[in-house]
Amino acid sequence: MISERELQDARRYTAERLAEIGVVLTVTEHDAIEVADFGLSRLEESGLQLLVYVNTDRYCAKELVLRPGQTCPEHRHPPFDGTPGKEETFRCRAGRVYLYVEGEPTPEPACEPPAGAYTVRHEIELRPGLQHTIPPDTLHWFQAGPEGAVVTEFSSVSRDELDVFTDERVARTTVVG
Amino acid sequence: MISERELQDARRYTAERLAEIGVVLTVTEHDAIEVADFGLSRLEESGLQLLVYVNTDRYCAKELVLRPGQTCPEHRHPPFDGTPGKEETFRCRAGRVYLYVEGEPTPEPACEPPAGAYTVRHEIELRPGLQHTIPPDTLHWFQAGPEGAVVTEFSSVSRDELDVFTDERVARTTVVG
Repeated sequence: MISERELQDARRYTAERLAEIGVVLTVTEHDAIEVADFGLSRLEESGLQLLVYVNTDRYCAKELVLRPGQTCPEHRHPPFDGTPGKEETFRCRAGRVYLYVEGEPTPEPACEPPAGAYTVRHEIELRPGLQHTIPPDTLHWFQAGPEGAVVTEFSSVSRDELDVFTDERVARTTVVG
Repeated sequence: MISERELQDARRYTAERLAEIGVVLTVTEHDAIEVADFGLSRLEESGLQLLVYVNTDRYCAKELVLRPGQTCPEHRHPPFDGTPGKEETFRCRAGRVYLYVEGEPTPEPACEPPAGAYTVRHEIELRPGLQHTIPPDTLHWFQAGPEGAVVTEFSSVSRDELDVFTDERVARTTVVG
């Protein structure tokens, strides 16, 4: 659960980080900033703030904003409606984000995941201007560096409610005001 | 035709406008900035600069940069490979862009197109933070305001070489270094 105060704080933080990189939002968009605690009630540790620019039946674009050290828990985007599942490209805009995907575990990774079920450990470090594409239905999680991060996500259709999390306690509960 | 000097000038202009709004490019990306004069050899009047972030077989994202008053000629994105054609969302990031689409002609539009074949006159003015989605296979053209414009384009798969221009003289000739 996210309290009303946490929600407003998270939205303010998100809008400020986006403004810093010159992203202009309408009032409607500001009020549509989504705040997800994944049902864990530890928002600053495991959570994500996001703004959906567009999500048609063919493509989607979002800004993802993370607080310093904040983690989006491990999950995959399964096939649906005859598609292979969501394919997504993360492009770092500000700060730093460490993306963990399937593959050879990275020795001495930059991040430790919070308590919970995390199984993939192949690290990809994204600084501003760097991007990485995650194939559909493959496990991934990510954590912001000490300055937090802003990440633009380009993707096929997004259906967050279908995401499958490795940790069974996790639910993709998003608070939209 | 675009001269080597025009190409380098256009790339420099594009990189500067993107840098102003905080977009960080890799060296590889800088050298991959595309400059299109649409075969008209009047680049500052009819032309477009663009950077493709990603173009998978499912979605695409680009930055479009226009000089003051620069126009992208009228065209549509026809069906291909069993798809209805490219659907695209324009989000203005900086400056101002006037988008002309099918529909009731706007009285006293902000722009006059350059000489050539232009048939749609329904105006949509996009300032930073505003966006508009163009359905597949529908005619559209756009012109930057007096400060130029930076527009992020989110879309389904992009196949520029399939674009159909209203003006038969126009060819989607893109110069990539």
